[in-house]
Amino acid sequence: MDPGEAARHAAAIHGTDFSKIPEFKDITAASITEHVHAINSNCPDERTKFIFKSLTTHLHNFVRETSLTTEEWMAALDFLKATGQKCTDLRHEFILLSDTLGASSLVTAINNPKPPGCTEGTVLGPFFEEDAHDFQFGESIASEGRGHYMYVEGSILNTKGEPIPGAIIDTWESDGQGKYDNQYENRTGPDCRGRLVSDASGKYAYRAVVPVPYGIPDDGPVAQLLGRLGRHIYRPGHLHVQINAPGYETLITALYFEGDPYLTSDAVFGVRNSLVVKTELINDPNIARSRGFPDPLKPHVLLKQDFVLPTVEEVKALKESSTS
Amino acid sequence: MDPGEAARHAAAIHGTDFSKIPEFKDITAASITEHVHAINSNCPDERTKFIFKSLTTHLHNFVRETSLTTEEWMAALDFLKATGQKCTDLRHEFILLSDTLGASSLVTAINNPKPPGCTEGTVLGPFFEEDAHDFQFGESIASEGRGHYMYVEGSILNTKGEPIPGAIIDTWESDGQGKYDNQYENRTGPDCRGRLVSDASGKYAYRAVVPVPYGIPDDGPVAQLLGRLGRHIYRPGHLHVQINAPGYETLITALYFEGDPYLTSDAVFGVRNSLVVKTELINDPNIARSRGFPDPLKPHVLLKQDFVLPTVEEVKALKESSTS
Repeated sequence: MDPGEAARHAAAIHGTDFSKIPEFKDITAASITEHVHAINSNCPDERTKFIFKSLTTHLHNFVRETSLTTEEWMAALDFLKATGQKCTDLRHEFILLSDTLGASSLVTAINNPKPPGCTEGTVLGPFFEEDAHDFQFGESIASEGRGHYMYVEGSILNTKGEPIPGAIIDTWESDGQGKYDNQYENRTGPDCRGRLVSDASGKYAYRAVVPVPYGIPDDGPVAQLLGRLGRHIYRPGHLHVQINAPGYETLITALYFEGDPYLTSDAVFGVRNSLVVKTELINDPNIARSRGFPDPLKPHVLLKQDFVLPTVEEVKALKESSTS
Repeated sequence: MDPGEAARHAAAIHGTDFSKIPEFKDITAASITEHVHAINSNCPDERTKFIFKSLTTHLHNFVRETSLTTEEWMAALDFLKATGQKCTDLRHEFILLSDTLGASSLVTAINNPKPPGCTEGTVLGPFFEEDAHDFQFGESIASEGRGHYMYVEGSILNTKGEPIPGAIIDTWESDGQGKYDNQYENRTGPDCRGRLVSDASGKYAYRAVVPVPYGIPDDGPVAQLLGRLGRHIYRPGHLHVQINAPGYETLITALYFEGDPYLTSDAVFGVRNSLVVKTELINDPNIARSRGFPDPLKPHVLLKQDFVLPTVEEVKALKESSTS
């Protein structure tokens, strides 16, 4: 039995369908991309086919443009392997990789276009939890001693400037140590996170603590990569906010603080100029007392911020106009 | 303490050096790529900086060109996670991913330019082993019963057509079941692989078996991906050959067979037109006996192939001319 016959015999056992295999073309450094496209052209899903055509083109052009060496390519594959091996049910090192390459921030920006005047969105981050408690207007999402006092207030509005009552506000933050509650091994329940509802006039208010910059996990391949790139691993301090209201597009955003030296080098590229807020330091014990701070002699930071949400229809129209 | 002050305090504890952080620029879907380049511009290694500039540009353009959705992006990250989790010390699913996207073949082609007339190289594959035995001219690398008989012979030559004596030839192949020895759980030693040396006139010869097409591992994310792309998982049958000779560039290649229906759709894009050989079926028992086949009444396949190696200097000159 000659090799061709042996191969045809094996293919018959495999049950391979050759009816759609493209014409043979010699593979060279120049022609291989077209060859891969041709093989992938049998993909039954048009969207998947389109995505892999773009992916293959960019991957190959990257290799050609850099004249990537065999050693560099193996180092890349070993890096990806190590990144996968660092993942657990609770840790997704590839999300972190995407974050630090700016890809998550870009995907977020592309998928969340906002009409003019609306509050910008930014990355959700990995620290959101479903088990946050409900709080009333003015209550504190942080237990006493978790950081410097901060009072957050404002309105939830639509693009006409009208209040949105009954909007559900999820908010979470790192504490004065730069840690989220779910980064403590002895976590017994939620802290520095909570869920509120805007009142009849669209207003909300809650007590919190001043969030502090923190580093991404420093014991994995991604932190090592940032070290090789001459980058630090830190994020500026920020307060996460997610707002849901019926008929309105969900807003996933975060507020950053003027004067934070990390604003220009956020390890995960989450900062947006429009989300950097200026706060006020309040030293008046009477105001602190009226806002319910347990120790009114301590100063507190006042963060005033309105959030403007587009309707689902407004965003739909925006997306349709951008693709037409 | 206001948030900016708290952040500066934290940064001092981190020991972060802000002296080289670029100017602040707002991050948008359009500007983020430049922002990432700016942050990475502090990379102390010029080659790494260059590679990441190209990588970031292609990654971001891929996201923009496909308007990748948040769900698609998460599916991609989960796929990469699953690919990493499938890796073991013995299995590198990312090499397989690179192979099936044509990237390994492309890296091989770029890094192994050959002067005209030289034998083309192709992918090494994952089945090479260091423990192959040494064989004399005409001996068999395969134990009896592993497949149809095949006789391989030819010369190792330089670009002037002169013989290269003493060249070390490593050769390995799948057996008649489409399996390499190291895919059998009860492997006790090497089989269907061996090391030979070309004789004083540059000639080599050995007995082997007809290699048969086989599938890449079908129990991982990569095989699943090929299924979604409408592709099969098979490689055409082939015989691996690696040749080392002092003063010559190492040749890593493989021979494929005319008539194999998988030639045009190799799952890992290893086929090159110049490496597809035409074999002859020999039915003469006298010839079979003279070549040492234990059962001379069985037919055998004759594979005649010369290998032409460039010198190290010839390849060096070629690489220098292509980059100048």
